[in-house]
Amino acid sequence: MKTVSEHRSFGGVQGVYSHTSEATGTEMTFGLFLPELAEDGPVPLLWYLSGLTCTHENAMVKAGAQAWAASEGIALIFPDTSPRGEGVADDEAYDLGQGAGFYVDATEDPWAEHYQMWDYVAEELPALIEGTFPVDPLRQGITGHSMGGHGALTLAMGLPGRFRSVSAFAPICNPSQSEWGRKQLTAYLGADEAAWAKHDATLMMKSRGFDGPMLIDTGTSDQFGDLLKTEALAEAIAVRRQSATLRLQKGYDHSYFFVSTFMEDHIGFHAEALYG
Amino acid sequence: MKTVSEHRSFGGVQGVYSHTSEATGTEMTFGLFLPELAEDGPVPLLWYLSGLTCTHENAMVKAGAQAWAASEGIALIFPDTSPRGEGVADDEAYDLGQGAGFYVDATEDPWAEHYQMWDYVAEELPALIEGTFPVDPLRQGITGHSMGGHGALTLAMGLPGRFRSVSAFAPICNPSQSEWGRKQLTAYLGADEAAWAKHDATLMMKSRGFDGPMLIDTGTSDQFGDLLKTEALAEAIAVRRQSATLRLQKGYDHSYFFVSTFMEDHIGFHAEALYG
Repeated sequence: MKTVSEHRSFGGVQGVYSHTSEATGTEMTFGLFLPELAEDGPVPLLWYLSGLTCTHENAMVKAGAQAWAASEGIALIFPDTSPRGEGVADDEAYDLGQGAGFYVDATEDPWAEHYQMWDYVAEELPALIEGTFPVDPLRQGITGHSMGGHGALTLAMGLPGRFRSVSAFAPICNPSQSEWGRKQLTAYLGADEAAWAKHDATLMMKSRGFDGPMLIDTGTSDQFGDLLKTEALAEAIAVRRQSATLRLQKGYDHSYFFVSTFMEDHIGFHAEALYG
Repeated sequence: MKTVSEHRSFGGVQGVYSHTSEATGTEMTFGLFLPELAEDGPVPLLWYLSGLTCTHENAMVKAGAQAWAASEGIALIFPDTSPRGEGVADDEAYDLGQGAGFYVDATEDPWAEHYQMWDYVAEELPALIEGTFPVDPLRQGITGHSMGGHGALTLAMGLPGRFRSVSAFAPICNPSQSEWGRKQLTAYLGADEAAWAKHDATLMMKSRGFDGPMLIDTGTSDQFGDLLKTEALAEAIAVRRQSATLRLQKGYDHSYFFVSTFMEDHIGFHAEALYG
């Protein structure tokens, strides 16, 4: 593992690191924020999964999360959204290929060789982090934005017992019924929709739910609102009687101005679960 | 004036606007954050001047200032750092020309035609803002980072009575004695150093000082520490008995991870002066 950079931030350290990933077969870069409290021993870890076109860097510099993570004593990890580099399959569209991994393990050519983002985020990166940094694997939460909200919800429901709490900002809620989903799931996983089910938060809510608290914020002025299919997940949450808070935030759009506004609430929400 | 974008942020609105500037003879873009409180009437205004290579956008998305400005009920304005565009003189170096206006009115060719950033920030933009948005011209503060800290300090001392409070993050303190200054002041203002004096915070502190509170934060691990000449301003502050707080922050560097860490303190400092 290589240290790309480290900056003092809110009394802790915002680092960027890279490593050769077995899952993706590429060099992968991630950001990790350790609060000052981590100097005294392992702290809880909150995963932040980013959206389409993002790298590890966007949320790290734009979400304002370190302020609240520092005061709550929580570490933050910001993985990349796909494998990258020469020789890695890509597409001209912004929503397929590099920057758009959708947190799945691709089975179809040309994606299968490197696009193993579920494996990377669910298995390889946690093992690397837990062996290297003072974070407590028994106290993990997960959140994300847009495609990353989809990732947070599907990982939380797909890995029972792993995360104590899950939240999301403007998540893609029902990708198997959305233009933000059908194209990508077909490309990565093939046309058989049975393989998509574990990567659809609404279907996972119907079949499994989440054993812990859930918080979702989405803006009423989200310019991609029709693609998110928030209504499908809302219904599934209500049908299941899932412990959850779903908030439609008046006037907010899909940007990081929205994400940063509610970051304090989300980190407070996770802190309650991780320190409760 | 054209609206480039508006995003709901922390209950207020983060806007980006552009207009044709008489001062620079170019199209200029700026960011303006209005807190929710501005719906009820004019609010105090805090100027944030950015550093080398920055546009209006960097601090707007990376400094985390809206959170604190919203809770204090203060508007924020983020001007650009220079004129831009085709036909505007530039230099290959990152620290001269576009992105590096140094908040002076250039008198030398080829800069004089467009590089009138003091006039723009001190006169034209305030008049535009005050006539358009609910901000109170009698309650203004100013801050900035690096080259923008230089701008904040020199504008505050050069325009007595304009600003009630001034602060700076890692400001260039003594440009007439630094490689971050001598080259630019020579290019923009000519070789006669008498013309530089009003653009050197240390010289202005010696000759005038500031009639109000001053807060300066600089990191002990600032990678540009030698260029800032913090020690010269520190001495001048002490000699004058200027009301000021100068903090050397252990382990922090020159980045926005440093700026964002202390933004809450700076906005709280200005709020006390603007609402006191």
